[in-house]
Amino acid sequence: MNLLGKKGIAIRTLPRTDAASLRQFARLGVATVHEAHERQGLLSPEIRPIQQGVGVAGNAVTVLVTPGDNWMFHVAVELCQPGDILVVAPTSPCTDGFFGDLLATSLQSRGVIGLVGDIGIRDSQTLREMGFHVWSRAVYAQGTVKETLGSVNVPVLCGNQLVTPGDIVVADDDGVVIVPHAQGEAVLTKALAREENETRKRERMRNGELGLDIYNMRPRLAEKGLRYYDRPEEVEE
Amino acid sequence: MNLLGKKGIAIRTLPRTDAASLRQFARLGVATVHEAHERQGLLSPEIRPIQQGVGVAGNAVTVLVTPGDNWMFHVAVELCQPGDILVVAPTSPCTDGFFGDLLATSLQSRGVIGLVGDIGIRDSQTLREMGFHVWSRAVYAQGTVKETLGSVNVPVLCGNQLVTPGDIVVADDDGVVIVPHAQGEAVLTKALAREENETRKRERMRNGELGLDIYNMRPRLAEKGLRYYDRPEEVEE
Amino acid sequence: MNLLGKKGIAIRTLPRTDAASLRQFARLGVATVHEAHERQGLLSPEIRPIQQGVGVAGNAVTVLVTPGDNWMFHVAVELCQPGDILVVAPTSPCTDGFFGDLLATSLQSRGVIGLVGDIGIRDSQTLREMGFHVWSRAVYAQGTVKETLGSVNVPVLCGNQLVTPGDIVVADDDGVVIVPHAQGEAVLTKALAREENETRKRERMRNGELGLDIYNMRPRLAEKGLRYYDRPEEVEE
Amino acid sequence: MNLLGKKGIAIRTLPRTDAASLRQFARLGVATVHEAHERQGLLSPEIRPIQQGVGVAGNAVTVLVTPGDNWMFHVAVELCQPGDILVVAPTSPCTDGFFGDLLATSLQSRGVIGLVGDIGIRDSQTLREMGFHVWSRAVYAQGTVKETLGSVNVPVLCGNQLVTPGDIVVADDDGVVIVPHAQGEAVLTKALAREENETRKRERMRNGELGLDIYNMRPRLAEKGLRYYDRPEEVEE
Amino acid sequence: MNLLGKKGIAIRTLPRTDAASLRQFARLGVATVHEAHERQGLLSPEIRPIQQGVGVAGNAVTVLVTPGDNWMFHVAVELCQPGDILVVAPTSPCTDGFFGDLLATSLQSRGVIGLVGDIGIRDSQTLREMGFHVWSRAVYAQGTVKETLGSVNVPVLCGNQLVTPGDIVVADDDGVVIVPHAQGEAVLTKALAREENETRKRERMRNGELGLDIYNMRPRLAEKGLRYYDRPEEVEE
Amino acid sequence: MNLLGKKGIAIRTLPRTDAASLRQFARLGVATVHEAHERQGLLSPEIRPIQQGVGVAGNAVTVLVTPGDNWMFHVAVELCQPGDILVVAPTSPCTDGFFGDLLATSLQSRGVIGLVGDIGIRDSQTLREMGFHVWSRAVYAQGTVKETLGSVNVPVLCGNQLVTPGDIVVADDDGVVIVPHAQGEAVLTKALAREENETRKRERMRNGELGLDIYNMRPRLAEKGLRYYDRPEEVEE
Repeated sequence: MNLLGKKGIAIRTLPRTDAASLRQFARLGVATVHEAHERQGLLSPEIRPIQQGVGVAGNAVTVLVTPGDNWMFHVAVELCQPGDILVVAPTSPCTDGFFGDLLATSLQSRGVIGLVGDIGIRDSQTLREMGFHVWSRAVYAQGTVKETLGSVNVPVLCGNQLVTPGDIVVADDDGVVIVPHAQGEAVLTKALAREENETRKRERMRNGELGLDIYNMRPRLAEKGLRYYDRPEEVEE
Repeated sequence: MNLLGKKGIAIRTLPRTDAASLRQFARLGVATVHEAHERQGLLSPEIRPIQQGVGVAGNAVTVLVTPGDNWMFHVAVELCQPGDILVVAPTSPCTDGFFGDLLATSLQSRGVIGLVGDIGIRDSQTLREMGFHVWSRAVYAQGTVKETLGSVNVPVLCGNQLVTPGDIVVADDDGVVIVPHAQGEAVLTKALAREENETRKRERMRNGELGLDIYNMRPRLAEKGLRYYDRPEEVEE
Repeated sequence: MNLLGKKGIAIRTLPRTDAASLRQFARLGVATVHEAHERQGLLSPEIRPIQQGVGVAGNAVTVLVTPGDNWMFHVAVELCQPGDILVVAPTSPCTDGFFGDLLATSLQSRGVIGLVGDIGIRDSQTLREMGFHVWSRAVYAQGTVKETLGSVNVPVLCGNQLVTPGDIVVADDDGVVIVPHAQGEAVLTKALAREENETRKRERMRNGELGLDIYNMRPRLAEKGLRYYDRPEEVEE
Repeated sequence: MNLLGKKGIAIRTLPRTDAASLRQFARLGVATVHEAHERQGLLSPEIRPIQQGVGVAGNAVTVLVTPGDNWMFHVAVELCQPGDILVVAPTSPCTDGFFGDLLATSLQSRGVIGLVGDIGIRDSQTLREMGFHVWSRAVYAQGTVKETLGSVNVPVLCGNQLVTPGDIVVADDDGVVIVPHAQGEAVLTKALAREENETRKRERMRNGELGLDIYNMRPRLAEKGLRYYDRPEEVEE
Repeated sequence: MNLLGKKGIAIRTLPRTDAASLRQFARLGVATVHEAHERQGLLSPEIRPIQQGVGVAGNAVTVLVTPGDNWMFHVAVELCQPGDILVVAPTSPCTDGFFGDLLATSLQSRGVIGLVGDIGIRDSQTLREMGFHVWSRAVYAQGTVKETLGSVNVPVLCGNQLVTPGDIVVADDDGVVIVPHAQGEAVLTKALAREENETRKRERMRNGELGLDIYNMRPRLAEKGLRYYDRPEEVEE
Repeated sequence: MNLLGKKGIAIRTLPRTDAASLRQFARLGVATVHEAHERQGLLSPEIRPIQQGVGVAGNAVTVLVTPGDNWMFHVAVELCQPGDILVVAPTSPCTDGFFGDLLATSLQSRGVIGLVGDIGIRDSQTLREMGFHVWSRAVYAQGTVKETLGSVNVPVLCGNQLVTPGDIVVADDDGVVIVPHAQGEAVLTKALAREENETRKRERMRNGELGLDIYNMRPRLAEKGLRYYDRPEEVEE
């Protein structure tokens, strides 16, 4: 059955990636993982971190909420395990402060790392002090009610991306990228290779070698028609 | 007479809340005060702090300005006292840098804590170094002129909220909330009660107790129709 | 020939301002230089720093890119010298992550100070750690391709401003201002005078003197019709 | 008691302006009434008409709603009379489609002219065909629930303006302006005078007379320093 | 294999819904179909029609494009049949004018109804005159290149929704809703029932009956605590 | 002397393009002229027409205004001739209603066609009825003052484009493009050639010929790696 965006459902289990792999994803970071995942899975740039200098990776526990209603967070807490990251999607755009330090305390007591949400959050300074990491669309103190059902652990659309429970969530100062659970191992392998390659390139560039030469770009630039001039006055009509 | 948004007026006095109460408001913070004030008085989420980790509360001295004109700030300075916060509203949307370190120096010499404005400000790094706290719509170096009258200490609309001179302004990393002067004591009492209640809840959550149980949510969730499944495949049509 | 926005061109040379003058521009900062430059040359307020507390000035090396394509950065690196700042303009709006730590390493090895761009960038945390300073429209991990020519060192439009190669770029927490190369000396002289004037004013204000008196504003305010009242009830119809 | 933004309240009565005056307000239009009202009361420019070429005026029946919940509309319908306009404010930003053709049918059967709301609406084409006029922040088909109380006929903040039940709402292609009930007559008198004055000016301008001469601007422009030149080359440093 | 967002692929076939059902979907319209589909599948409200008063339904042919590159449209044309609607998603946000009257002519010659895209389009007036219907994020004349592969008929994310080739696209003045192909018949049945129900309600409301009574809301409103007052002065603290 | 953005200046003359050429530019339209001008000169997509189905071309008379101040319009009127279009740029972002039907009447009496501005305008319905054509950032009734000098006929930056007095302004439903006066003839020639070419292509496409074949795209698509499949299941890993 197609569960995408379906309300009134809570699924107790999800596939999870091992902690060692998650640590590597976190270290590699969003930009590298995104490249290794063939530039798929990036959340909209409006979803921004509330802290700086933090990079994490975890298993997605998805929460579908209705505008101005945070009831489903309480259902989600019980289904979380250490290493999880909540991924929250509203059924329509809403920047209310769905989430604050009380829920963060409850989640942290179960080992949850943080939250990624296309929503607003509040108690931002306390969340930073607690070390509970958040990527959200807004910081806004507006409270919410507990009246309408959403779901926990159905596929959701968050930041113009599809997130399925158990997907790997990688988040740092650059934003958030989602890797499907089944593709995790393959993406990790590619990302590690990419990292090694970039390290070598970085070393050469640090020594002053040019990308033009490292990547042998000059002939193709010339072929496409790039013309060099010493001064602007020399450019012919 | 209805003074809302009226130009060409400067009112010398306003009701003020005592320093001890303001300190408590500052400590309680925006999210808690907003809840205690029955979720009223919150400024739009676009009004953001230029600093991090600062929470304050003060008495609103209101400044009504015309786009690109900061003349009224000079009128306002003279009418300020220690513990005041300037609340600035333009008569139509404008993100010019109406306010910078010179005016901040003048205000700080009179004990003013900070500024909340639906405007742009400049000299942001100097303001942070001075400890003059600002919540604004934008940081923008664009200067302003001194040609057109506005007002000081008339009621204004700022960030989609009504602010009356003497209202209590509470501002922190979550944003800004306004409490009418006359309701200050009642809101403070409720906020303190709320804080105590939250402290107990936080303790229970830290120990792993679930909101589902603390708030006895399970029966109502079931009544509304929430269904649990172990795996997604089990969800029936 | 009119080279504004022209593609397929790389100009090897540009006028450059001496390091001592650039240091003074950097110290004076965006707000003061903008005032001294008769309030011209300010980039849109959406172009924001990714770091805090950094003020720089440098010579503009311009890069014209097509959406989602960062090929021209590699052409630009070779044409840079110590003290340069890249100014990047896309031919149409695009917030892709055109620029990351690899290119920054290459630029830094040539003494380039930073980048100002109406684009997105990525590897933001690494760029901060490297001390490579960036002002951009967005932080976004989305990668780019190398398929389409742009230009290096043609005049470009960036953040609703005209930037000509060799223009002086001043950037700090308030944003970015551009001063044409030929006007650099004149603007610097005015900015230094302005700074001295402001220092005196700041001192007087710190001592409690009012802008109303320092600038002798009271008569003109009265003439324009400002009316003072002790209490709001006194305002007549 | 301060009822601004108070929830759980429905007030049955409000002051109403006579139909003849409302017809005049509608004919004068938003720009003229706004000028006559000393440039106060204008809603944010984001609140736009869904139809073109329609100008109306009516008595404000206010509706306070919570995000994603349109229950209070049904309470409002019963309290409406011919010549009323619903003014809808959410307690926090939300563009859900709170309102559609069913509610419009119900309101139209009671003589309600239209709706002004800082919300989304739906069934836009049917609303246009029905001649039920709407000014809203968004058109969006997203449905809403009926779970949480708001209020009817308490003062609300809508589009960064204060709207009190019974205020005069004037709306046309330029947007929406609010005139407090008690000031209606005075504003109408001024607006009519302004209209007459503008008609004369328009006639003179149509005949080619210049504003420079009609308003005798030339001396003041010269005094402020405006310099005329025949060609750009003539401008001295 | 997971094809979501995969580049370099063109799939020749897709499931299609019969013309009679599509006509019914078009007549029912976005708001009704969205309700019948349990409020799922709505595109972001920023995707707006360039014409007014047009409602259509068709089979989704999906096009994945890279920023500023419209090459894949030409691949898509060949795979279209009468009754199809192109659904276009860029791999990262871009409002360039990917699509204009030439491509529309080509598509129209194959019976394609229109285009829904999270992109910019151009030649908007010609498209309206041709009767080629478009829902897009922007109208912008900026041209695009043909350098980089995307895909045709892979699942895409468009306007924060998942669209799979063959999904039913319903679009009118309210926006766009997507119904998965396999659920089309069930949704249509529910939508028709809903329409009939609404027609009866509309008739009762036109005759002046209140939603309060039709839906028997009064007891539940009272239970939730709604209080009626004749005048604002009567509201007790 | 560099006059870009310089205040306090009015230049009486500008180069003008003949009426016959302007008529051809108007007929060709923004998208075609922009392509012929090598994709340069397009204003930001936020500058939108207030009318539909109108395409014009004229000579740019530039107006530089300060936020909330429309004094310079009166200076501009006197310097206009038939066939001119006002191009208005504020010195910093401002959406006030700088312009309405009175000024339009004055301009129309001198043969001015319309206005393009990075500002707000008002009296939008009257402007449409008068046939005075407008492209602006906003429609907003907010009035302006006449206190601060700007300039007429200095180069300005409008919608992230440079506009020099006498530039050719082409505007239609797709937006606005600027062609430097000196390049007018060359761009017109290219645009006419392009139009002829497109007419032929359009005819072939109307007859069902594919762009894939007309442009011989198939080999290059294959070379870049595009793979065709009959059904999604056939795509190999």
